[in-house]
Amino acid sequence: MFDIRPVSHARDAAIQHAIDTKTKPRGALGAIEALAAQIARIQDTLTPRLDRCRLVIFAGDHGIAAEGVSAYPQEVTRQMLANFLAGGAAANVFARVNGVDLHVVDAGVAGAAVQAPGLTSRRIAAGTRNSAVEAAMTLEQFEAALGSGRKIGADISAEAAAFGEMGIANTSSASLIVHKLTGIGLDALVGGGTGLDAVGLARKQAVLARAAARTPVRLDARGALREYGGFEVVMMVGALIGAAQAGTGVLVDGFIASAAALAAVELAPPLREYLIFAHRSAEPGHRVVLEALAARPVLDLEMRLGEGTGALLVWPILKSAAAMLSDMATFETAGVSGAGE
Amino acid sequence: MFDIRPVSHARDAAIQHAIDTKTKPRGALGAIEALAAQIARIQDTLTPRLDRCRLVIFAGDHGIAAEGVSAYPQEVTRQMLANFLAGGAAANVFARVNGVDLHVVDAGVAGAAVQAPGLTSRRIAAGTRNSAVEAAMTLEQFEAALGSGRKIGADISAEAAAFGEMGIANTSSASLIVHKLTGIGLDALVGGGTGLDAVGLARKQAVLARAAARTPVRLDARGALREYGGFEVVMMVGALIGAAQAGTGVLVDGFIASAAALAAVELAPPLREYLIFAHRSAEPGHRVVLEALAARPVLDLEMRLGEGTGALLVWPILKSAAAMLSDMATFETAGVSGAGE
Repeated sequence: MFDIRPVSHARDAAIQHAIDTKTKPRGALGAIEALAAQIARIQDTLTPRLDRCRLVIFAGDHGIAAEGVSAYPQEVTRQMLANFLAGGAAANVFARVNGVDLHVVDAGVAGAAVQAPGLTSRRIAAGTRNSAVEAAMTLEQFEAALGSGRKIGADISAEAAAFGEMGIANTSSASLIVHKLTGIGLDALVGGGTGLDAVGLARKQAVLARAAARTPVRLDARGALREYGGFEVVMMVGALIGAAQAGTGVLVDGFIASAAALAAVELAPPLREYLIFAHRSAEPGHRVVLEALAARPVLDLEMRLGEGTGALLVWPILKSAAAMLSDMATFETAGVSGAGE
Repeated sequence: MFDIRPVSHARDAAIQHAIDTKTKPRGALGAIEALAAQIARIQDTLTPRLDRCRLVIFAGDHGIAAEGVSAYPQEVTRQMLANFLAGGAAANVFARVNGVDLHVVDAGVAGAAVQAPGLTSRRIAAGTRNSAVEAAMTLEQFEAALGSGRKIGADISAEAAAFGEMGIANTSSASLIVHKLTGIGLDALVGGGTGLDAVGLARKQAVLARAAARTPVRLDARGALREYGGFEVVMMVGALIGAAQAGTGVLVDGFIASAAALAAVELAPPLREYLIFAHRSAEPGHRVVLEALAARPVLDLEMRLGEGTGALLVWPILKSAAAMLSDMATFETAGVSGAGE
């Protein structure tokens, strides 16, 4: 249904040879070499280029916030949307420092429609319904969010994309989605999100257990996203698929972005090789998702902010990896002796 | 003897308050927050700036290379010096991508003096003596290398410095220095360097055991550097001290750079808080040095190249950390509600 061209492995031996003949001991750039090879496969070339990256932040509200699962009130989603547009959030600062183009999408923030220059409005509704008591969205809403996301992903005219999110209660949404997709217990998935204390965490766990009990033990990606997703999460799923359909590699951020990636890979398995996992979040569920996707993230800095902040920090590393393959001299061109010569 | 102004802790509470009032949950940027605080202390300000970084690569040869401790022949040091000057090495590529200014210093490469535009010549001699049989350098050579390094470090007119190295056999030099400074066994310190096989590694271990047996079990920093150092290693020790004397924070690269840092901190303890450890190298001795310095590096990418390549990848992360503190909006300025409000 989602047609993604599988990443080519035809050049794997040539890519490895190119990396091995660069003026450095074999394997000496460790994980950077694996990143370079992945980008070369995505671009199907021995000389990959990464000049531009676009970050799209999707914002949406969650009905389950009414159950008190977050340390912050729901209006923070809207306030942070304004902060992104004013340039004051962490994502703005990291995007500026690292030369990434930042776009903000209202996927369905609570309250009236946000009108602001620079904002892309793709509102599905003023937040989802409360998934502790009913499905978060209708089938029509799900399809609309997925479609909008695919279009946004496909339209990214940069060599790399990153997707961020903002939505009070969306670690709850992500935990429930991962729980239903993997069968892994909520205990291993639920963390403090933006900073719950022990009492708050116990309440969050009880609410999520109640929400999970409402549906069958396991759900497929469509079912899990419709029952527990946020509009921003489903739009991100669509954007991941759309970007890969356009041949664009994607930097995957933290727990919520990785939960979206897990669902998206179930919907379109060839997507997996277009994904570069940026960092391991401090949120406990993230470790589980990374394992389920056999992903080894680039950074491990105990970050847990979302907004695409982890992806933004990895962009220069990814660019460096591509440039290593495209621009470094070889032993032959530089006249450097090899090992044991 | 080496007068370094201790980093100020007078603003610690104000720095933490500034970080905590940024529009993000408390602690949500993990290790980035610790980096921001360190830079703020080094610059003694609540609004640190990191616009420019300079990498200086010191190249030198080691007499102990004659014992066959490296997978590569000694002439590779000189060949790589030419590669740096031609812009083809990994350090050049990473420096270009990440906007770092790169300088190359001949600290004492084997053979005739290298003459090339762009090269800073501070040659002590055409390589050190063979430390398996005698002291690597004379006291005069040691003092000259240290002094040249201090001047180079002090003259860095950028907000951050990084030091890289190139020298065939310098993991042997670093292993011996760390062994003498910490008392930790060579078994835990000696690795394959640029890529020795098992036979080569056994030979390297035997040579280093012989070299170590030549001197008392423990040496102080001056003794260890003079007996086993390379000119590039000692110059790096001087540069670390010189940079900190000028108030400049330094990104420390891999095993050899960290061994130099270990010696430099013994010579000038206030240096420690000017050091940002960039990455954990795949070279086994690096883990030991990081523990001895209670350092938590930013990256862990199984790199083992040297040249400052790890430091170069961390520069944009460090810049992002400083910008977080200087440029992010606060809950108050952005009109965002706090936790539990």
